[in-house]
This record gives sequence, structure tokens and C-alpha cells, in this order.
Amino acid sequence: MTDPRLTDLVQAVPALRLKTEPSDLEHYGRDWTRRWTPAPLAIALPGTVEEVQAVVRWASQHGVAVVPSGGRTGLSGGAVAANGELVLSLERMNRVLDFNAVDRTLTVQAGIALEAVHNTARDHGLAYPVDFASRGSCSIGGNIATNAGGIRVIRYGNTREWIAGMKVVTGTGELLDLNRGLIKNSSGYDLRHLMIASEGTLGIVVEASLRLTDPAPASNVMLLALPSFEVLMQVFSAFRERLQLQAFEFFTDRALHHVLAHGAQKPFEEMHPYYVVTEFASGDEVQEAAAMAAFEACMDSGWVSDGVVSQSDAQAAQLWRLREAITEALAPYKPYKNDVSVRISAMPAFLEETQQLLGKAYPHFEVVWFGHIGDGNLHINVLKPDDMDNAEFVGQCEQVTTLLAASLQKHEGSISAEHGIGLVKKGYLESTRSAAEIEVMRGIKRVLDPQGILNPGKLFDV
Amino acid sequence: MTDPRLTDLVQAVPALRLKTEPSDLEHYGRDWTRRWTPAPLAIALPGTVEEVQAVVRWASQHGVAVVPSGGRTGLSGGAVAANGELVLSLERMNRVLDFNAVDRTLTVQAGIALEAVHNTARDHGLAYPVDFASRGSCSIGGNIATNAGGIRVIRYGNTREWIAGMKVVTGTGELLDLNRGLIKNSSGYDLRHLMIASEGTLGIVVEASLRLTDPAPASNVMLLALPSFEVLMQVFSAFRERLQLQAFEFFTDRALHHVLAHGAQKPFEEMHPYYVVTEFASGDEVQEAAAMAAFEACMDSGWVSDGVVSQSDAQAAQLWRLREAITEALAPYKPYKNDVSVRISAMPAFLEETQQLLGKAYPHFEVVWFGHIGDGNLHINVLKPDDMDNAEFVGQCEQVTTLLAASLQKHEGSISAEHGIGLVKKGYLESTRSAAEIEVMRGIKRVLDPQGILNPGKLFDV
Repeated sequence: MTDPRLTDLVQAVPALRLKTEPSDLEHYGRDWTRRWTPAPLAIALPGTVEEVQAVVRWASQHGVAVVPSGGRTGLSGGAVAANGELVLSLERMNRVLDFNAVDRTLTVQAGIALEAVHNTARDHGLAYPVDFASRGSCSIGGNIATNAGGIRVIRYGNTREWIAGMKVVTGTGELLDLNRGLIKNSSGYDLRHLMIASEGTLGIVVEASLRLTDPAPASNVMLLALPSFEVLMQVFSAFRERLQLQAFEFFTDRALHHVLAHGAQKPFEEMHPYYVVTEFASGDEVQEAAAMAAFEACMDSGWVSDGVVSQSDAQAAQLWRLREAITEALAPYKPYKNDVSVRISAMPAFLEETQQLLGKAYPHFEVVWFGHIGDGNLHINVLKPDDMDNAEFVGQCEQVTTLLAASLQKHEGSISAEHGIGLVKKGYLESTRSAAEIEVMRGIKRVLDPQGILNPGKLFDV
Repeated sequence: MTDPRLTDLVQAVPALRLKTEPSDLEHYGRDWTRRWTPAPLAIALPGTVEEVQAVVRWASQHGVAVVPSGGRTGLSGGAVAANGELVLSLERMNRVLDFNAVDRTLTVQAGIALEAVHNTARDHGLAYPVDFASRGSCSIGGNIATNAGGIRVIRYGNTREWIAGMKVVTGTGELLDLNRGLIKNSSGYDLRHLMIASEGTLGIVVEASLRLTDPAPASNVMLLALPSFEVLMQVFSAFRERLQLQAFEFFTDRALHHVLAHGAQKPFEEMHPYYVVTEFASGDEVQEAAAMAAFEACMDSGWVSDGVVSQSDAQAAQLWRLREAITEALAPYKPYKNDVSVRISAMPAFLEETQQLLGKAYPHFEVVWFGHIGDGNLHINVLKPDDMDNAEFVGQCEQVTTLLAASLQKHEGSISAEHGIGLVKKGYLESTRSAAEIEVMRGIKRVLDPQGILNPGKLFDV
């Protein structure tokens, strides 16, 4: 630790924990993307809000870039530190600060894992309903930074809907205490919502007050086999109009193939080209009859070729695993990920166009599709051939993303539904946001981070 | 129309409808507050988005301030034009542009009245659930500008939750098309949420895409008589834990007195000091039994002295009228309005403190309380004595607001729950937002409205 700036940091924040070992620099310098070589200056692990502020003030004095860091499960490079940045890890700030039964809020430090929030809410007889597969590792601060979505959005919305308040340290080291848990507050610009999805470029979330809700009603999980892609939206409509859907997820035979190879259990005798896993409220006979009616209507129309409904919690978990294990099962193939969305009504035309596009563009690559079809959100994973160099692979994929971005622009969709823009999608931001909007974003960035030290180069170049 | 700037405006936007008659200047120059003397330069009534843009560009060239204007039902002076501004009325832009059954969205021009939105949604078998008494006159653009709340927030949230997208003209005349109806969109700063509650100081909302939902379930309305103020939160808890509340509103005997004088029908033989009107889902025996259980638990505890439950839609409307007619019944008394909120858990301590404060501060004034207690939102109306000059009255009330603001600051509440800051609460913004937050707001204002021509002097001074 001979860098004089770090010597200064230790003097400025004596209690700060600092890591500079090469293994730490590598560990904390990257997220779930593996495209960049980690090269941070050092890792700072503050224990208090005041320490976070002091680190930012030090960074501001020395012009050092700061990369806020949670669970680093991100898929867009938002937490990558590859240019001598200081990684500011919130991992030590992972405590529950308060539970309020009357307000039904849980106040936490930003470094707490999503799963710990789930468990704490459950211990109090309530639920924090945002959920996705990386729950054990991802942090609430990161969830807020990307407005994380996941598998229950169709019923409960995105992270944004559940943030009652938050404390944020801006690029000048100022602490803002935003909205403070109020339900109604029409007192000027809602900076809380501005911070949500800003990917650490406007401020570092240090605390959040999360709204809790009643535990999800008793539910059933159903797995459906579909003969073709074209019927997907019809199946969705048939289920949505009859049932209170908690989730409606789709995946292809290629996805199932990888999940089975990863150890999951085969759900049907035969393989089918497409699958849906759906969860719906099902506590009484009326709801169970409605579920059967939806299933039968789809069978009668030839939209569904087979189906199974969970008979126990264990079986429900088994069916869910077929969908949830996809990301993990694909990880070894270094997939190039697209995470796009359109309005549900635009989905059929967009799906058709995308299928044609990818069929032409990727004849030699394996393409795995899955997604939250009820939210208009599609995940397209392209697997790297073993014998191909990664840079070459990414280069080829990016050419296709350019075409996909053009299609999204036409269908008024988004190049990032839930992963965020980060580094990975920065070059395609203009397919989703107009030049005027991006200029406004740049202007806002200068207000909250005048020196441009917070996560620079992510989202857009200033 | 001899002002050369207006001659120039007519040349620049030939199709623009422009009004300069004294009666029009007065009519369009004020909102439901009556504290300022209207003195606009002129009234512009554009018919298209392009005309709105052209008017803003003209205003930018001539340094003329623009006051965006909807139904002017605001209670904070946000739409007042008292300093030679151009009023830009959206009243001609009041059409439904699109209904999308798959996305469940209704796209409208900003000048449409809330009630017309309700009716259109109902015609399509769906509902737009934000609702309040001024529904017949207020416009969606104004609802967005204040993040309007109202009587169903406890169940459906504020306006913010229902805006899938919007088009906004900024202070440079640029048109931003924000979020475009997407459910999931993590592609940078959500400028849509920044615009909501910005009171026309960052942009002029010209179109909005509103999310619709299923019609409200069958419900019952119950009126409760309470013996004291102290039991209010207990009654709320007893009902909230047993029922799916659609509304939970409270008012005092003084409020009832004025509503009865205004023509409403007396609900109980005797008068009681406090009342609650609550609406809850009630379609089956289980729900009806739960409602009776809640009522009986409150009676047994002595928290409620009497009650009546609606037996028909007509009776439900009659009970609702007791609450909804308050604002109208008080209007002739030129009430000074406070519209404050705290977290629900802070409500008991805040209520006690406020009651003491107002008892001491207003011995000679009649004070009428009501509000959305389930959202932590309290309306305090102070009635002007007949023989007191209005300026003198407002002056005395503002001294009390200063004390109330200090109490709110202590309890981490908001000086404006749903009316907005406008001109009326501008002097108290610092009780709710920190100096650092207000500086950030000023910076953001400069980004979107660099010349400061959009609704200047509202919310804060630049």
C-alpha cells in the first residue's frame, strides 16, 4: 500500500477497513460478467454511513473514481472496477436497523442480502415480495441501483414499488435522507425515485426502508409444455384472465436441456419445444377449478401439449428449479446476455421478428431463451462455442445486439429490462432513450456528482 | 393585444388560440386558492403537442414565464399566474388517444378530466383507481404534477403508481417520451418519476399513458362515531387487520356540522366528537362477518359509540357524501389549509402534539380536521372569521404553520402530503426537505429548464 492516496485515505478514515491484496482486487473488482479484467486501486469496506461519506470526500479531493459494490451479482458490468477505481464495498453494512409493525417497514443497511430481508420479514409474519435467483448473494443496495425485477413482478412490481425511503451519499459526500417512509409526500422532486435504477452513478445507497406486505397467498405451481412459440401469448391470456398470477415464466427446450444436465429432474417423458412455469393463488375450490379451466382451455385449443401441477411444496420447488437454475446452468458457457422488454401488446410482433433475426444471425451459436413473459421481458442467452476466443465471440454477439436494438427501437422497447445498462449495454442506450433524455441524464449526473467520481463510465460517458 | 410579444406569438404559432379578455385573465389566472390577484399576460390554449412546444420556444426567446394550467383545482397556488406569466391551458387537449386491452393502458391528453378517465375505463370493463372529490374538474396533467392522492391511496397508492408513461415538454421546448408504457425498463434515470410531483417546474405534461386495473371488488361503506381522538388509531388497526380496506377517512364534528348545513343528511340521532367513514371489500359472508367482528371489537373496547353500514349503493353514496362534501362546504369560509403527513406509526404522537398546538394557537378560530388517516395524511382547515381581513387572517395562520412545520420536522413528516408546495407552502419546504436536497432540486431545475421559465417561483425560488 505505497500509493500516497491510500496513505492519505487511511489517515482521513482511520477505522476504515482497506484491502489491497491481488486476490481481493480480483474478487471485488468484478461482477457476474467476466469480460473485464479487474484492476481496482483498492477495496474500502466502511462500517458506517459516516465512513462512506468520508471515503467519498477523500475520493473527491483526490479525483479517484468510486465503484459502489454490493453482492456483485450484476450482469451488466455495473460493479466492475477495471480502471484503478476504489471499490466501496457495502458488505460490512449488512444489518437490519429497524422493524416497524405499524408502518410495516423494515429498515436495513444497503449491504444486506435479499434473502436475509426475506427471512427477517417472514420472522415478523410479513413478506418482502421482490425475488429472484441470486437472492442469497445480491444486496438490497444493488437491487435498488438496478430497480431489480425478477420472478414476481407480474404480481408485485419491481424493487421501486417497495422502497419507502433511503439514505444516499452523493458525489460530494452529502447524505440525503429521502422520503423517510412517508406514504404521501408531495413536497418537490422525488429524488428517491431518481436514485432507483441510477446504477451507482448519482449516489451510494447506504440505508433503505423497505415496505413489507402480507405473505403471498397459498399457491400452486404448474408446468406447461407448449408445441410452438406462437401460442405463448394465448396461453398467457388464458391464464391471466382466469387466475391471480404470481409468476408466469417461459423457457425453451435448450434451457431445459442445460438445467437437466445440471442435475434437475425431467418433468415429462417427452421433450417439448417450449415450457411455461406459472404460479397462482390457489387456496380454495374456486381457484383450483379456475386453474383446471385455464389448463383445459389451452389443451382444447392445442396451445398446450402436456402439463403438471404441484402436489406438494417439494414438488413446487422442483418445478421452480427448472426455471431458476437456468442462469447457473448456463454460466460455464460464458453466455452473452440480452435482457430486453417491450409492452406486452408488442410482444407477438417483437418475438416473431426477433426469432427470425436470431435464426439468421446466429446459425453457429446455441441460443437459449427464457423470460418473464407476463412483464414483456425476454432473456436471450447466446452460448460461447468452446473453441472460440471470448473477444471474437462478444464481437460477433454485439453485431447482433445492434440489430436487436434497432428492432427494439421500432417496437418502443428497452435494451435493459432489469439488469441495467452498466458497461455491457452502454453502446445501445440510444435505442431506448432519446438523445434529449440522455443529455438530461448527463445534466442530472453533474448536479449530484459534479466531479464525476461515482461509477464513471457506467450507463453513459459524461 | 398590443403587447409586441403576443404579436410575435401569434405569428410564431398561427393556429394557437389566445385569450386576453380581463375575465379570461382572471378565470385562468387562479386556482382554488384565492390569495393572489390573477395578472397573467395572456392565456394560450394549444391544441397539439407541437403547439405546446412552439409556445415554450417563444417563451424561451422572450423570457416569458409559463404557468401550465389544467383544471386549476389546486389548493397550493401551483397554477396561479399573478406576475405577467403566460398561462398555458391544456383544456383543449382533453381527448382519449388510445385504449389497449392487452397492456391495460389508457393513453390520454393531459387536459382530460379525472372523471372522464374513470368513465372511459369503466366503459372498457376496467378501472383507474385514483379518486378524489374534484374529479369532475381536475385534469390528469395536474394530478401528475402534484402526484395526487385522494381517498383510495390506502388500497391503490398515489397517481405515481398508475403512470405507465408520459410525454413532457421541457423548458427548452424539447419533447421527452418517457418510459413508453413498459413494465420493466432499467435503462437509466427514470425521468417519468422525476416529473411526477414536480408541479410544472420541470416540464409540461402533454400526454400520459395510465395503467388500468380490475374494477374494485364489491364493497360496503361503514360510518363510525368515535368518542375521542385518542382511540382513532386503535379503530384503524382493528379494521385494517380484519378487512381489505379501500378507504379509511376521518373527520370531526365541526366538519359534519358544515356538511349538514350544506344539505347532507344527519347520520345519527346524536352528535359525536369524531367520525370515520371506511370502505372495505365485502362480497361474501366471510368478509361481512369480519366487518361485524371489527365493529364489535371496537364497540366492546369503547372505541366506537355508534355505527351504520350501508345497505344499498344509494346509502353508501350518502355516507361518502359526509366526507367528500367537506371541502366544498368549507369553501365559503376561505379556509387556510394544512395538508400534512407523517408515518402512520408517528401519527399518535403527532396528533397529540398538534391538537395541543392548535388549541393554544387558534383559540378564536374555528378549526376543522379531517383526513386520510390510513395514509398518515391529515387535513387541517382553519376558517376565517367573517369580520377579519384576509391578509391578517393568513398572517396569523402562517405563524401557526411555522409551529406546525417545526413539529413535522421533529416527527419526520411532510408539509404537503398531496396538495403540493406551490406558493402556499414554499416558505415551509425546509421543514420537509433538507437544504442539500433543495440545492439538488435547484440543480435539476436548471438542467430541464435552464432559463427558469416554467412555473417560476413555485415550489422554491431559484
